[in-house]
Amino acid sequence: MDTCIFCKIILKEIPKYYIYEDDSVVAFLDIHPTQKGHTLIIPKKHSDTFLETDDAVLAHSACVAKKIGKALKDAVGADGVNIITNNGLAAGQIVSHLHTHIIPRFIGDGLMHWPGGTYSSGEEQDIAEAIKKSL
Amino acid sequence: MDTCIFCKIILKEIPKYYIYEDDSVVAFLDIHPTQKGHTLIIPKKHSDTFLETDDAVLAHSACVAKKIGKALKDAVGADGVNIITNNGLAAGQIVSHLHTHIIPRFIGDGLMHWPGGTYSSGEEQDIAEAIKKSL
Repeated sequence: MDTCIFCKIILKEIPKYYIYEDDSVVAFLDIHPTQKGHTLIIPKKHSDTFLETDDAVLAHSACVAKKIGKALKDAVGADGVNIITNNGLAAGQIVSHLHTHIIPRFIGDGLMHWPGGTYSSGEEQDIAEAIKKSL
Repeated sequence: MDTCIFCKIILKEIPKYYIYEDDSVVAFLDIHPTQKGHTLIIPKKHSDTFLETDDAVLAHSACVAKKIGKALKDAVGADGVNIITNNGLAAGQIVSHLHTHIIPRFIGDGLMHWPGGTYSSGEEQDIAEAIKKSL
Protein backbone atom coordinates (compact mmCIF):
# COMPACT_ATOMS: atom_id res chain seq x y z
CA MET A 1 0.00 0.00 0.00
CA ASP A 2 2.40 2.64 -1.29
CA THR A 3 0.02 5.54 -0.80
CA CYS A 4 -1.36 4.62 2.65
CA ILE A 5 -0.30 7.23 5.20
CA PHE A 6 -0.31 4.67 8.02
CA CYS A 7 1.90 2.32 6.01
CA LYS A 8 4.31 5.28 5.69
CA ILE A 9 4.16 5.81 9.46
CA ILE A 10 5.04 2.12 9.98
CA LEU A 11 8.06 2.62 7.74
CA LYS A 12 8.97 5.74 9.79
CA GLU A 13 8.70 7.84 6.66
CA ILE A 14 6.52 10.28 8.59
CA PRO A 15 7.77 11.40 12.00
CA LYS A 16 5.45 10.58 14.90
CA TYR A 17 5.58 10.30 18.64
CA TYR A 18 5.78 6.53 18.81
CA ILE A 19 4.56 4.79 21.96
CA TYR A 20 5.11 1.12 21.23
CA GLU A 21 6.27 -1.26 18.51
CA ASP A 22 6.57 -5.02 18.09
CA ASP A 23 6.57 -7.48 15.19
CA SER A 24 2.93 -6.92 14.27
CA VAL A 25 1.76 -3.51 15.54
CA VAL A 26 2.90 0.09 16.02
CA ALA A 27 1.33 2.64 18.39
CA PHE A 28 1.75 6.42 18.23
CA LEU A 29 0.01 9.60 19.36
CA ASP A 30 -2.91 10.81 17.22
CA ILE A 31 -1.90 14.17 15.78
CA HIS A 32 -5.46 15.52 16.39
CA PRO A 33 -6.19 14.12 19.86
CA THR A 34 -9.73 13.98 21.20
CA GLN A 35 -7.95 14.11 24.56
CA LYS A 36 -4.25 14.58 25.12
CA GLY A 37 -2.60 11.17 25.05
CA HIS A 38 -5.06 9.83 22.45
CA THR A 39 -3.13 6.91 20.97
CA LEU A 40 -3.58 4.86 17.80
CA ILE A 41 -2.52 1.22 17.42
CA ILE A 42 -2.14 -0.01 13.84
CA PRO A 43 -1.19 -3.39 12.41
CA LYS A 44 2.02 -3.49 10.36
CA LYS A 45 0.36 -5.68 7.73
CA HIS A 46 -2.09 -3.41 5.92
CA SER A 47 -5.79 -4.18 6.23
CA ASP A 48 -8.56 -1.68 5.62
CA THR A 49 -10.76 -2.41 8.63
CA PHE A 50 -11.16 -4.68 11.66
CA LEU A 51 -13.43 -6.93 9.60
CA GLU A 52 -10.69 -7.83 7.07
CA THR A 53 -7.86 -8.26 9.58
CA ASP A 54 -6.33 -11.64 10.45
CA ASP A 55 -7.64 -13.06 13.71
CA ALA A 56 -4.10 -13.40 15.10
CA VAL A 57 -3.44 -9.70 14.53
CA LEU A 58 -6.77 -8.70 16.12
CA ALA A 59 -6.07 -10.93 19.11
CA HIS A 60 -2.60 -9.48 19.58
CA SER A 61 -3.82 -5.90 19.08
CA ALA A 62 -6.41 -6.38 21.82
CA CYS A 63 -3.70 -7.39 24.28
CA VAL A 64 -1.54 -4.43 23.25
CA ALA A 65 -4.56 -2.13 23.66
CA LYS A 66 -4.92 -3.34 27.25
CA LYS A 67 -1.24 -2.73 27.96
CA ILE A 68 -1.28 0.74 26.40
CA GLY A 69 -4.67 1.61 27.90
CA LYS A 70 -3.32 0.97 31.41
CA ALA A 71 -0.12 2.91 30.75
CA LEU A 72 -1.98 5.83 29.18
CA LYS A 73 -4.45 5.99 32.07
CA ASP A 74 -1.56 6.11 34.53
CA ALA A 75 0.51 8.56 32.49
CA VAL A 76 -2.18 11.22 32.15
CA GLY A 77 -4.12 10.45 35.35
CA ALA A 78 -7.31 9.55 33.46
CA ASP A 79 -10.47 8.21 35.09
CA GLY A 80 -11.30 5.90 32.19
CA VAL A 81 -10.52 5.03 28.57
CA ASN A 82 -12.46 4.38 25.39
CA ILE A 83 -11.07 1.77 23.02
CA ILE A 84 -12.62 2.24 19.58
CA THR A 85 -12.33 1.11 16.01
CA ASN A 86 -14.31 2.95 13.33
CA ASN A 87 -14.73 0.68 10.34
CA GLY A 88 -15.76 2.28 7.07
CA LEU A 89 -16.32 5.92 6.12
CA ALA A 90 -19.90 5.69 7.43
CA ALA A 91 -18.47 4.80 10.84
CA GLY A 92 -16.12 7.78 10.90
CA GLN A 93 -13.00 6.05 9.57
CA ILE A 94 -10.80 8.62 7.82
CA VAL A 95 -7.70 6.55 7.01
CA SER A 96 -8.41 3.17 5.38
CA HIS A 97 -5.88 1.24 7.47
CA LEU A 98 -7.25 -0.35 10.64
CA HIS A 99 -6.49 1.80 13.68
CA THR A 100 -7.58 1.30 17.27
CA HIS A 101 -8.15 4.55 19.15
CA ILE A 102 -7.29 4.62 22.85
CA ILE A 103 -8.76 7.78 24.33
CA PRO A 104 -8.22 8.81 27.96
CA ARG A 105 -11.32 10.14 29.70
CA PHE A 106 -11.92 12.36 32.72
CA ILE A 107 -15.01 12.77 34.90
CA GLY A 108 -16.98 15.70 33.47
CA ASP A 109 -14.84 16.10 30.33
CA GLY A 110 -17.97 16.87 28.35
CA LEU A 111 -17.56 14.37 25.50
CA MET A 112 -21.03 13.19 24.59
CA HIS A 113 -22.04 9.60 23.88
CA TRP A 114 -24.59 8.48 21.32
CA PRO A 115 -28.18 8.18 22.54
CA GLY A 116 -29.99 4.84 22.76
CA GLY A 117 -33.17 4.12 20.83
CA THR A 118 -35.93 1.52 21.06
CA TYR A 119 -37.33 -1.34 19.00
CA SER A 120 -40.90 -1.63 17.83
CA SER A 121 -42.82 -4.82 18.67
CA GLY A 122 -41.22 -7.91 17.13
CA GLU A 123 -38.41 -5.93 15.51
CA GLU A 124 -35.73 -6.91 18.03
CA GLN A 125 -36.41 -10.61 17.53
CA ASP A 126 -36.40 -10.26 13.73
CA ILE A 127 -33.04 -8.46 13.76
CA ALA A 128 -31.51 -10.98 16.19
CA GLU A 129 -32.60 -13.81 13.90
CA ALA A 130 -31.21 -12.03 10.83
CA ILE A 131 -27.81 -11.57 12.49
CA LYS A 132 -27.71 -15.18 13.64
CA LYS A 133 -28.49 -16.37 10.11
CA SER A 134 -25.58 -14.27 8.78
CA LEU A 135 -23.07 -15.72 11.27
CA MET B 1 -20.94 -11.16 41.02
CA ASP B 2 -24.45 -11.88 42.30
CA THR B 3 -25.78 -8.40 41.62
CA CYS B 4 -24.25 -7.77 38.18
CA ILE B 5 -26.98 -7.52 35.56
CA PHE B 6 -24.68 -8.87 32.84
CA CYS B 7 -23.79 -11.88 34.99
CA LYS B 8 -27.54 -12.51 35.25
CA ILE B 9 -27.84 -12.25 31.46
CA ILE B 10 -25.06 -14.84 31.10
CA LEU B 11 -27.05 -17.14 33.39
CA LYS B 12 -30.15 -16.47 31.23
CA GLU B 13 -31.93 -15.09 34.29
CA ILE B 14 -32.92 -12.05 32.21
CA PRO B 15 -34.46 -12.70 28.78
CA LYS B 16 -32.52 -11.22 25.88
CA TYR B 17 -32.25 -11.62 22.14
CA TYR B 18 -29.07 -13.66 22.12
CA ILE B 19 -26.88 -13.58 19.01
CA TYR B 20 -23.98 -15.83 19.90
CA GLU B 21 -22.55 -17.92 22.74
CA ASP B 22 -19.44 -20.01 23.29
CA ASP B 23 -17.36 -21.12 26.29
CA SER B 24 -16.08 -17.65 27.12
CA VAL B 25 -18.43 -14.99 25.70
CA VAL B 26 -22.11 -14.23 25.11
CA ALA B 27 -23.50 -11.70 22.60
CA PHE B 28 -26.98 -10.18 22.63
CA LEU B 29 -28.87 -7.14 21.34
CA ASP B 30 -28.52 -3.93 23.36
CA ILE B 31 -31.97 -3.08 24.69
CA HIS B 32 -31.37 0.64 23.94
CA PRO B 33 -29.72 0.46 20.52
CA THR B 34 -27.81 3.41 19.10
CA GLN B 35 -28.72 1.79 15.78
CA LYS B 36 -30.96 -1.21 15.28
CA GLY B 37 -28.82 -4.33 15.52
CA HIS B 38 -26.48 -2.74 18.13
CA THR B 39 -24.94 -5.81 19.76
CA LEU B 40 -23.01 -6.31 23.00
CA ILE B 41 -20.38 -9.01 23.53
CA ILE B 42 -19.58 -9.80 27.15
CA PRO B 43 -17.13 -12.26 28.76
CA LYS B 44 -18.68 -15.01 30.87
CA LYS B 45 -16.01 -14.54 33.54
CA HIS B 46 -16.83 -11.23 35.20
CA SER B 47 -14.33 -8.41 34.85
CA ASP B 48 -15.14 -4.75 35.30
CA THR B 49 -13.35 -3.31 32.27
CA PHE B 50 -11.12 -4.21 29.32
CA LEU B 51 -8.08 -3.26 31.42
CA GLU B 52 -8.69 -5.97 34.04
CA THR B 53 -9.67 -8.75 31.62
CA ASP B 54 -7.48 -11.79 30.91
CA ASP B 55 -5.52 -11.47 27.67
CA ALA B 56 -6.93 -14.76 26.37
CA VAL B 57 -10.49 -13.49 26.82
CA LEU B 58 -9.68 -10.18 25.12
CA ALA B 59 -8.03 -11.99 22.23
CA HIS B 60 -10.98 -14.31 21.78
CA SER B 61 -13.51 -11.47 22.12
CA ALA B 62 -11.76 -9.55 19.34
CA CYS B 63 -12.16 -12.51 16.97
CA VAL B 64 -15.82 -12.89 17.94
CA ALA B 65 -16.31 -9.13 17.38
CA LYS B 66 -15.01 -9.54 13.84
CA LYS B 67 -17.35 -12.47 13.18
CA ILE B 68 -20.38 -10.67 14.60
CA GLY B 69 -19.42 -7.35 13.00
CA LYS B 70 -19.45 -8.97 9.56
CA ALA B 71 -22.73 -10.78 10.20
CA LEU B 72 -24.38 -7.65 11.62
CA LYS B 73 -23.25 -5.53 8.67
CA ASP B 74 -24.72 -8.08 6.26
CA ALA B 75 -27.91 -8.60 8.26
CA VAL B 76 -28.92 -4.93 8.44
CA GLY B 77 -27.21 -3.75 5.24
CA ALA B 78 -24.90 -1.36 7.08
CA ASP B 79 -22.13 0.66 5.43
CA GLY B 80 -19.77 0.36 8.42
CA VAL B 81 -19.48 -0.60 12.07
CA ASN B 82 -18.02 0.89 15.24
CA ILE B 83 -16.50 -1.52 17.73
CA ILE B 84 -16.21 0.18 21.11
CA THR B 85 -15.46 -0.49 24.74
CA ASN B 86 -16.14 2.24 27.30
CA ASN B 87 -14.02 1.61 30.36
CA GLY B 88 -14.98 3.42 33.55
CA LEU B 89 -17.88 5.74 34.33
CA ALA B 90 -15.88 8.68 32.95
CA ALA B 91 -15.74 6.86 29.61
CA GLY B 92 -19.51 6.30 29.49
CA GLN B 93 -19.57 2.77 30.97
CA ILE B 94 -22.93 2.20 32.65
CA VAL B 95 -22.67 -1.49 33.61
CA SER B 96 -19.43 -2.48 35.35
CA HIS B 97 -18.95 -5.70 33.39
CA LEU B 98 -16.82 -5.42 30.26
CA HIS B 99 -19.00 -5.13 27.15
CA THR B 100 -17.94 -4.57 23.57
CA HIS B 101 -20.44 -2.53 21.56
CA ILE B 102 -20.84 -3.40 17.88
CA ILE B 103 -22.84 -0.61 16.24
CA PRO B 104 -23.92 -0.72 12.59
CA ARG B 105 -23.50 2.57 10.73
CA PHE B 106 -25.06 4.07 7.61
CA ILE B 107 -23.83 6.87 5.35
CA GLY B 108 -25.46 10.07 6.61
CA ASP B 109 -26.92 8.55 9.78
CA GLY B 110 -26.08 11.74 11.66
CA LEU B 111 -24.19 10.23 14.61
CA MET B 112 -21.47 12.70 15.52
CA HIS B 113 -17.87 11.84 16.33
CA TRP B 114 -15.68 13.60 18.87
CA PRO B 115 -13.61 16.52 17.59
CA GLY B 116 -9.81 16.44 17.46
CA GLY B 117 -7.66 18.92 19.35
CA THR B 118 -4.04 20.02 19.16
CA TYR B 119 -0.91 19.91 21.30
CA SER B 120 1.09 22.93 22.39
CA SER B 121 4.82 22.96 21.62
CA GLY B 122 6.68 20.10 23.32
CA GLU B 123 3.54 18.70 24.92
CA GLU B 124 3.12 15.79 22.49
CA GLN B 125 6.66 14.57 23.12
CA ASP B 126 6.25 14.88 26.90
CA ILE B 127 3.05 12.86 26.88
CA ALA B 128 4.52 10.19 24.58
CA GLU B 129 7.48 9.84 26.95
CA ALA B 130 5.17 9.62 29.99
CA ILE B 131 3.12 6.84 28.39
CA LYS B 132 6.24 4.90 27.38
CA LYS B 133 7.57 5.16 30.93
CA SER B 134 4.29 3.69 32.24
CA LEU B 135 4.39 0.71 29.86
